[in-house]
Amino acid sequence: MSKINYDLTLIKGIVFDIDGVLSPATVPLGPDGIPCRMANLRDGYAMVRAVKAGLKIAIISGAFAPGLRERFSMIGLAPGDIFLDTLDKLPVLQQWAADNGFSAGQIAYVGDDIPDVPALRWCGLPATPADGAVECKALALFIADSKGGYGVGREIVEEVMRAQGIWPVCSDATGI
Amino acid sequence: MSKINYDLTLIKGIVFDIDGVLSPATVPLGPDGIPCRMANLRDGYAMVRAVKAGLKIAIISGAFAPGLRERFSMIGLAPGDIFLDTLDKLPVLQQWAADNGFSAGQIAYVGDDIPDVPALRWCGLPATPADGAVECKALALFIADSKGGYGVGREIVEEVMRAQGIWPVCSDATGI
Amino acid sequence: MSKINYDLTLIKGIVFDIDGVLSPATVPLGPDGIPCRMANLRDGYAMVRAVKAGLKIAIISGAFAPGLRERFSMIGLAPGDIFLDTLDKLPVLQQWAADNGFSAGQIAYVGDDIPDVPALRWCGLPATPADGAVECKALALFIADSKGGYGVGREIVEEVMRAQGIWPVCSDATGI
Amino acid sequence: MSKINYDLTLIKGIVFDIDGVLSPATVPLGPDGIPCRMANLRDGYAMVRAVKAGLKIAIISGAFAPGLRERFSMIGLAPGDIFLDTLDKLPVLQQWAADNGFSAGQIAYVGDDIPDVPALRWCGLPATPADGAVECKALALFIADSKGGYGVGREIVEEVMRAQGIWPVCSDATGI
Repeated sequence: MSKINYDLTLIKGIVFDIDGVLSPATVPLGPDGIPCRMANLRDGYAMVRAVKAGLKIAIISGAFAPGLRERFSMIGLAPGDIFLDTLDKLPVLQQWAADNGFSAGQIAYVGDDIPDVPALRWCGLPATPADGAVECKALALFIADSKGGYGVGREIVEEVMRAQGIWPVCSDATGI
Repeated sequence: MSKINYDLTLIKGIVFDIDGVLSPATVPLGPDGIPCRMANLRDGYAMVRAVKAGLKIAIISGAFAPGLRERFSMIGLAPGDIFLDTLDKLPVLQQWAADNGFSAGQIAYVGDDIPDVPALRWCGLPATPADGAVECKALALFIADSKGGYGVGREIVEEVMRAQGIWPVCSDATGI
Repeated sequence: MSKINYDLTLIKGIVFDIDGVLSPATVPLGPDGIPCRMANLRDGYAMVRAVKAGLKIAIISGAFAPGLRERFSMIGLAPGDIFLDTLDKLPVLQQWAADNGFSAGQIAYVGDDIPDVPALRWCGLPATPADGAVECKALALFIADSKGGYGVGREIVEEVMRAQGIWPVCSDATGI
Repeated sequence: MSKINYDLTLIKGIVFDIDGVLSPATVPLGPDGIPCRMANLRDGYAMVRAVKAGLKIAIISGAFAPGLRERFSMIGLAPGDIFLDTLDKLPVLQQWAADNGFSAGQIAYVGDDIPDVPALRWCGLPATPADGAVECKALALFIADSKGGYGVGREIVEEVMRAQGIWPVCSDATGI
């Protein structure tokens, strides 16, 4: 049984913010002053397996640093599932849901700060990191054990995939 | 009610040191030996919102690494509010206050080490990170829960904005 | 006496995954989106000493970032003991064992995630970091005190070398 | 009174290892496989003040990464006090002591791993980080509260300078 109080078999898409969710909130600055995002490789493994198993994974982020599009492409996300430099997230999320034929109840959204609040309110399964903003925690049905950037993506993808019986078994254990 | 024992409605300007405050004290070295500073993106979000809401945010730091001016410009600070490569901080702080018509009591200063002591002594609301030097903690009216670089800026900006009723509400939740 | 419940004097080869084992799971992204791996220098010291003392150390990893081959060469691994960009690890491990004349019981394998499960099952001494996946912990005879990237390699190499009486004594204390 | 059980007024020189002492043990790899060292800026401030106050600070390290010499020069160390790429540390330490006219009892040496053991044995005040190797902890008269790279240099320099009455007072609080 999952520790998340939601029928996880409904979930068809999981949508992530980057900063403070898939990347830690504290990151190095590049020489041009653009924050150099970080990635958790166990998040990445889970996302690879989710996409291969037929779940839709998308990114909606205000970030625009070099390497982000390439990273998420490398782990299997389609170009149309990666939205960077996006300040107003909810309309993008709703359009993406419509394009994929998903209802709000079929979508998990993971965000950590105030710009994520409208998306967290709208989706069926709002989730946030252990160090998410108080506004996000107040809305979240799932608060991860991990801080942002340190395994949040892995936790939620693994929970959903286990509930759906599609988490990789060990006889099928090749990966990225 | 704020956890800071100061009338936060007085504050018109918040001034930050960088090293050990907005950046962690431990950072990578560039190939030229210049420490590559880091940034906390939730600090950044709060600073963007503060500037948009009319609070003055300034930087007074001994640091001079590439990317710092660009980073603080990107999050909305005016060129005249960014003082890098500044060893003697108090005269710069006092001139900045005079130029803006602020009294000491209208200024919060956040510093972590001995070069920050004169500014901490002079300002109305001295603040320091959880791992600030003992000399700074002895002066601080507010010791953040976060260590330097891991959310100190967010904590103090959020406290001030909440006390002034200008922290973003969720219907106004777009951001950087 | 070792804290590992295995006859460590049998071990002739120690084989490591990189991501989440010798490198932390959370790392910076390069501008091309390739995760920039990290290394623990005390892991490195132990591996240098192990190779000099006649233990075989090998790497079998799905990773392919610049610098990895160079790093492991610098600490003394032979080119034929470094396998990068390897998704299906067990056949590579078995071939390497055959080439070296090692039985499964003479090999320790250290992995943190599902792609490591077949190798962990096959080897004599399966080991995993403190934050290894639950599937790895279920198989491991040794769960390190350290999280991946923060000393896991040092712990297991040191345990094996101490049990074999080849850990450097202080009169022989030069190193990398 | 200091927490170090040694007459700190005797100390004329403090000598540091880099990896695991002034830099964390876990660091990013450069594209050439050379570990990119990190620095703690509060260590740096203390070292600047120590040199200005007449204490000798030196580096003896096996490391040779770009930026290290530049970093330690920038914080005020003389070229003749920076020894990189040095595997056999004790003879270098002894020659440096002789050149400066220091006895072993006038020197603190801070190291974290087996290559540091001969120097730790020889010097008057051996010190090690909170996460130093067991061999170093067994020899150390001072085990820092900080892990390597996270303030070890600050702790020991500050202790020595306070005991000698030369830690900067706040009226003299400019710095790097």
